[in-house]
Amino acid sequence: MSEDEATGDGPVKGLSRRGLLGLIGAGAGGLVVGGVGGAAVGASVASAHAQDGTGTVHPFYGAHQAGIATPVQEHLQFAAFDLADDATRDDLISLLKDWTYASARMTQGLDVSATGAVGGSPQAPPDDTGEALGLAAAALTITFGFGPGLFANPALGLAAQRPPQLQDLPPFVGEQLEAGLCGGDLCIQACADDPQVAFHAVRNLSRIAFGRARIRWSQLGFGRTSKTTADQSTPRNLFGFKDGTANILADDPHALDQHVWASAADGPVWLAGGSYLAVRNIRQRIETWDRVRLVEQEQIIGRDKGEGAPLSGGTEFTALDFGKKDAAGTPAIDVKAHARLAHPEFNGGVRLLRRGYNFVNGNDLTGDLSAGLFFLSYQRTPDRFIRVQRSVAKDLLAEYLVHVGSAIFAIPPGAAQGSYVGAGLFA
Amino acid sequence: MSEDEATGDGPVKGLSRRGLLGLIGAGAGGLVVGGVGGAAVGASVASAHAQDGTGTVHPFYGAHQAGIATPVQEHLQFAAFDLADDATRDDLISLLKDWTYASARMTQGLDVSATGAVGGSPQAPPDDTGEALGLAAAALTITFGFGPGLFANPALGLAAQRPPQLQDLPPFVGEQLEAGLCGGDLCIQACADDPQVAFHAVRNLSRIAFGRARIRWSQLGFGRTSKTTADQSTPRNLFGFKDGTANILADDPHALDQHVWASAADGPVWLAGGSYLAVRNIRQRIETWDRVRLVEQEQIIGRDKGEGAPLSGGTEFTALDFGKKDAAGTPAIDVKAHARLAHPEFNGGVRLLRRGYNFVNGNDLTGDLSAGLFFLSYQRTPDRFIRVQRSVAKDLLAEYLVHVGSAIFAIPPGAAQGSYVGAGLFA
Repeated sequence: MSEDEATGDGPVKGLSRRGLLGLIGAGAGGLVVGGVGGAAVGASVASAHAQDGTGTVHPFYGAHQAGIATPVQEHLQFAAFDLADDATRDDLISLLKDWTYASARMTQGLDVSATGAVGGSPQAPPDDTGEALGLAAAALTITFGFGPGLFANPALGLAAQRPPQLQDLPPFVGEQLEAGLCGGDLCIQACADDPQVAFHAVRNLSRIAFGRARIRWSQLGFGRTSKTTADQSTPRNLFGFKDGTANILADDPHALDQHVWASAADGPVWLAGGSYLAVRNIRQRIETWDRVRLVEQEQIIGRDKGEGAPLSGGTEFTALDFGKKDAAGTPAIDVKAHARLAHPEFNGGVRLLRRGYNFVNGNDLTGDLSAGLFFLSYQRTPDRFIRVQRSVAKDLLAEYLVHVGSAIFAIPPGAAQGSYVGAGLFA
Repeated sequence: MSEDEATGDGPVKGLSRRGLLGLIGAGAGGLVVGGVGGAAVGASVASAHAQDGTGTVHPFYGAHQAGIATPVQEHLQFAAFDLADDATRDDLISLLKDWTYASARMTQGLDVSATGAVGGSPQAPPDDTGEALGLAAAALTITFGFGPGLFANPALGLAAQRPPQLQDLPPFVGEQLEAGLCGGDLCIQACADDPQVAFHAVRNLSRIAFGRARIRWSQLGFGRTSKTTADQSTPRNLFGFKDGTANILADDPHALDQHVWASAADGPVWLAGGSYLAVRNIRQRIETWDRVRLVEQEQIIGRDKGEGAPLSGGTEFTALDFGKKDAAGTPAIDVKAHARLAHPEFNGGVRLLRRGYNFVNGNDLTGDLSAGLFFLSYQRTPDRFIRVQRSVAKDLLAEYLVHVGSAIFAIPPGAAQGSYVGAGLFA
């Protein structure tokens, strides 16, 4: 066995034999296994692909996974994976090691392996697919999660490690879920300031997973709808309103500890320092919304459209005054306004760390654009998301939304250098 | 009738009554027609949405439409439209005037009308959908085209203006076209350095078209695969190869005149200064490609993967030497290599101005990413594209591609200030 073999409990030094098989495709007959294996893992030349400058580079290893409290990037490629029917516990471990190895490289602006897109044997398929050659790291983060199905799979022996709260999300009023857009054993969230860099990451991780896991559903997101640093401008969703004004900021460790990071007291020890990711694929009825009067749009949201200020007065960052009424006794902020029913004051103090993206998936047969919000939120426990979602499912905005996809993932803490994402699960 | 009514042959001063109806939705019953009509068109306050600086701004009016020889932007939102079954010639004229009015504003970083997203009556739906508020113009260009169906429609009286070459593209070897991804009476190509700005443009133009035309198909593109200025780096397609090395450059007026701009001698006088746009939705079999040995990938393309240099030697911009052979008499560039069969030398000197974009539309049921190249090329006459496509349909690369969408559009010249795109068609 090569010193770089990454199965078992040894440190991660390269791609596993199965990962290398993925790169050439088990279906291709494995004619060049020896060649690519030796060349890909043994080479010592680092092949950075960032010729135009590296841009922002986020460390991959750390106490928490990057891509959660990291300042939110402009673009997203997300994918949920199902584990292969015959996958074993060792397959899962080797996959996580391979994904860690490749992600630690790609997030630094490097190719997926040391030989990369063009440095290997010309008689083998390249390890890296090459479309990010010459592109900067572009602030790429890659974040991994585990779905409920992983713990229910007897072949994996993880039943005892299952966080009690990691269950498929309950039904919510008005949703119209499509099975093909829900669930997944594993997830990868790739965020970057260049969509080609984010796409490249998911594509190469999918390739490495060949024979062990395959994509169940995926989504490209093009416009962040969150604000996670004080100096980021608040972006707008496809209803034209600012979104994320009251989001948790990346530089607010107190709020992160209180609302986002799972603690050992919350559930399994292996998840401490991790989080839970709730995913909702929300189709927005934009053509219908666009016919709503401005005053009514603002009533539905509870803020004005231009500035994003609460209807109770002030500017964007003024606190909402739910008690304010006009002379006739009508509340300035409607009792069913989105900003009110999503507010911590009406949800037991719960705050979600949101990281959503706008999307458009072509159009439907009537000519309406199939556009919406790919909602991602991180919270310390799933019940926090459920509480808020139950509340907003009955707000004035809900009439203009259709939730078609849903998933929940446990997000392990960050990997220590030399270890791999999720290692604590197998300790 | 308002002075801003844009039907008939008068100058374009604002949105037509039908365009304003589109903004509120004819289906909504028109309760507030008077309100929005008066407020939207009569207001004199310009509402620029570019609060963060305007970025690059391209002029909308000119001899040629912007978005052809314009330095290619990073993002694309494309849409093909079908005219409503009951649309009249006046409807088409008013639609083109409305689209011109709105596009001339949006490309300058302004809202779609003077009252825009938040400046109108609170009792009316806003004219602008608002998601670009605060965003820069981002080099937005909006380019319009006319499909063959427009000239075959007896209600429009355009049969005599039909360019003889404007016919649906002929069948090509190996294509698997889907009707829902082909054709269209009209097209809009919105390119920008911010995808939300490009999306905003198409969304608002679709809204204005309500009742007169509706989207037939659409596509978001995220990575340019063309190079149109000498200082732009050559981007890579999803096969990991540089794409567009030999493209026509925006600052090469001789090549543009020779290969791109239609002349009065080519066909109808109204099209002089315009062009023809060929559109191909090309699904790439990326997972299969990724299993091909590097040497074979390079043989298929005819260039090396890292540098993009011809296999006949040199660097990226070295001319291809098709006569070069090795000692055994094997051509350095395979006779069926893509670079050879796409080369002007084997296509009667024809060069296409390409403006393609990478895309990903989720994944298929087997877990493969539904990714590919949204190919856009501009040429002086359609037969030039057909000649090149017939050639490359039989190259080594074709095995890894599936053409699923196809369309051809006549691209009118640019509009003069005070006139509208396509005015020459109705003269």
